Amino acid sequence: MDNIVKEFFKVLDIETVLDLVSQFPPVAAEPVGLAAAGGRILAEDVLAPENLPGFARSTVDGYALCAASTFGASESGPAFFQIVGAVAMGETSRMSVSSGQAVRIATGGMLPPGADSVVMIEHTEALDDTAIEVFRSVAPGQNLIAADEDFERGARIAAGGRHLRPQDIGILAAFGRTQVHVFRRPVVGIISTGDELVSIDTVPAPAQVRDVNSYTLGSLVADTGAVAKGFGIVKDDFPSLYAACAQALDCCDMVLISGGSSVGVRDYTVEAISAFADSEILVHGIAISPGKPTILAKAAQKPLWGLPGHIVSAMIVFTRVTRPFLRHIGGWSNPRAADVAIPARLSRNLASVQGRTDFIRIRLLKRGTELWAEPVLGKSGLLNTMIHADGIIEIGKNIEGLEEGTPVEVMLF
Amino acid sequence: MDNIVKEFFKVLDIETVLDLVSQFPPVAAEPVGLAAAGGRILAEDVLAPENLPGFARSTVDGYALCAASTFGASESGPAFFQIVGAVAMGETSRMSVSSGQAVRIATGGMLPPGADSVVMIEHTEALDDTAIEVFRSVAPGQNLIAADEDFERGARIAAGGRHLRPQDIGILAAFGRTQVHVFRRPVVGIISTGDELVSIDTVPAPAQVRDVNSYTLGSLVADTGAVAKGFGIVKDDFPSLYAACAQALDCCDMVLISGGSSVGVRDYTVEAISAFADSEILVHGIAISPGKPTILAKAAQKPLWGLPGHIVSAMIVFTRVTRPFLRHIGGWSNPRAADVAIPARLSRNLASVQGRTDFIRIRLLKRGTELWAEPVLGKSGLLNTMIHADGIIEIGKNIEGLEEGTPVEVMLF
Repeated sequence: MDNIVKEFFKVLDIETVLDLVSQFPPVAAEPVGLAAAGGRILAEDVLAPENLPGFARSTVDGYALCAASTFGASESGPAFFQIVGAVAMGETSRMSVSSGQAVRIATGGMLPPGADSVVMIEHTEALDDTAIEVFRSVAPGQNLIAADEDFERGARIAAGGRHLRPQDIGILAAFGRTQVHVFRRPVVGIISTGDELVSIDTVPAPAQVRDVNSYTLGSLVADTGAVAKGFGIVKDDFPSLYAACAQALDCCDMVLISGGSSVGVRDYTVEAISAFADSEILVHGIAISPGKPTILAKAAQKPLWGLPGHIVSAMIVFTRVTRPFLRHIGGWSNPRAADVAIPARLSRNLASVQGRTDFIRIRLLKRGTELWAEPVLGKSGLLNTMIHADGIIEIGKNIEGLEEGTPVEVMLF
Repeated sequence: MDNIVKEFFKVLDIETVLDLVSQFPPVAAEPVGLAAAGGRILAEDVLAPENLPGFARSTVDGYALCAASTFGASESGPAFFQIVGAVAMGETSRMSVSSGQAVRIATGGMLPPGADSVVMIEHTEALDDTAIEVFRSVAPGQNLIAADEDFERGARIAAGGRHLRPQDIGILAAFGRTQVHVFRRPVVGIISTGDELVSIDTVPAPAQVRDVNSYTLGSLVADTGAVAKGFGIVKDDFPSLYAACAQALDCCDMVLISGGSSVGVRDYTVEAISAFADSEILVHGIAISPGKPTILAKAAQKPLWGLPGHIVSAMIVFTRVTRPFLRHIGGWSNPRAADVAIPARLSRNLASVQGRTDFIRIRLLKRGTELWAEPVLGKSGLLNTMIHADGIIEIGKNIEGLEEGTPVEVMLF
């Protein structure tokens, strides 16, 4: 096996690895009811099938009228209007408005023919049921939304690959889209390896530990909008790992193998992946810390990852490397732009090794109005450091270290 | 009805409104399987039932030994060790290590008795199967995690009210918590009012519009981790609104009434709420823009909201006012701290009215390494402005305006 391992040993920098997303096709689309489409990734371009709102609507409670009739109106010299009717909500007005006439209208009501503006009720005084005085002039178009002001027919509402936010759902509702096409949620198979692992409902014997990684990774997968599918704990040997990978590749869109941080297990992972027809080891090591021993392979056109065994390393690799791939196969048009980065200033000097990208766990602190990024140092096998951290910063491969006060960007967990 | 409306008319500032959260009790807790607990709110304090990892574990591949035997070792003067065995993963070592002896160990393996440190394989050379040279000294405790280094027995792992992140799920897994108690997801009833509204599967007649608000608010509710329950479109009259509220209060933990932006509908909302026994109008108007006509009442100990009809106003009120209440009844210990605020600099001068809090829609732009907040101006009835916006900034009630370049905090949508 040593030959295979060495032949494929490729330590790449993180940017090169991230550029490999294009090797993997996105999953198929599926129709989904609009109420369930929030947070999903749109799989179609949506054009406005009609103008929105489709008719001129008042944005205030008041009177629809011709703006020209109000010109010059003031507190001391109000303009006089005859009330010729009222607009009922949801109904078209039967009466038309001429110069010197006004029609009662509520917020959201449709402007009657002849009216080009609305005066707010606060700027009027009713003389009786048939007449008002207006104390301010309005301009044509004032206090209304024009028929095509929100969207013009044919305008692009949303492009495929968009992550649907509540406002997108609102716009799709406005255009009567009871159903939209979104990308299917990718299914991610999770395999834990390690002879020391026991399931979480077991009391570990000395030297054993419970399977933390499956649960942590499953939660990260769910947070990304995908579906985690566990394949349990697999022994550190080739036949077990090969069988589990075959099963996972068969029904998942991506596979995560986690726990194999010892040299032997990494070899088994490479050996198992290489045994699949048309498989290819794309990455065997990334110039990052933590997370160097990460493996990425392509098998059955699907990404298959060998993640570091230390849970902190696995989380960081998932967050910064694996997740953009998962978003990509889930249809996101710009998977790397989706993360929120918070600008802050570094609270202390940090050393870093040139030639690799370092990820440092960070706690955010507020001092006055400024945010400071305080490094949370600790071994990558310690879960407690991840509880105390709010996110991570990245120190580029050409940087030797960062000084206290340097502006940094904190990527939140 | 005018008397009731006037009697209760209370325009409050936003801070006073937000302080009212304490009037509402959180929902009950329920047990949930750990794999489904991510994103939920913990309803119990969890203490570490045992030390973690529970035994000293190697963090590298190498040799377990007594650190003292390596002191003074160097490239030119290596220390010599006799290999007395190997630690199998997940098994306790039967042999003990004495001075000058070493035991093979992989990452994650349990230290054998007598060993106090691990030397990395890279710093050794095997002479044969039974002996190695060590080229660097190690300190006691080096390259291992002590038995109680991650968590000490009795330490608090997580407090009730915590929003469970993937790392929290990992720690609960580490301690064998197959099930945890979390707060039940609050159920939020959504009622749309307006005679101009039609359901989204209908082609609106002139003057009619589709029910955008139910879908937008439903998506916001789901984003908050709660369950949206639609009660359809209700006519603008007292009996219809009262009946819908009664039905919603009966089976929901919070009720949103949306669409009533005209004065008449606001009156019906107040009238309908006041008709419930033990109901109380807590807020009738908030000194914010947009969103002034917001109503908050308590009925059956539950918050009942009258949200503005304009969708942009409704979204902003939900995000900045309603959501902290929803999180509170959903068990969050610090509901107002949960939002992510991004520091940025304002791209242009902004005027603001004193005496009220203004919310301005913002698009984030990157200029060099700095983030700039560019106001997205537009009427609050226009959905398109919300698509273009990334978030909002708040201009406090005592501020007359902000100058270009002022540091602001953008709360993301």
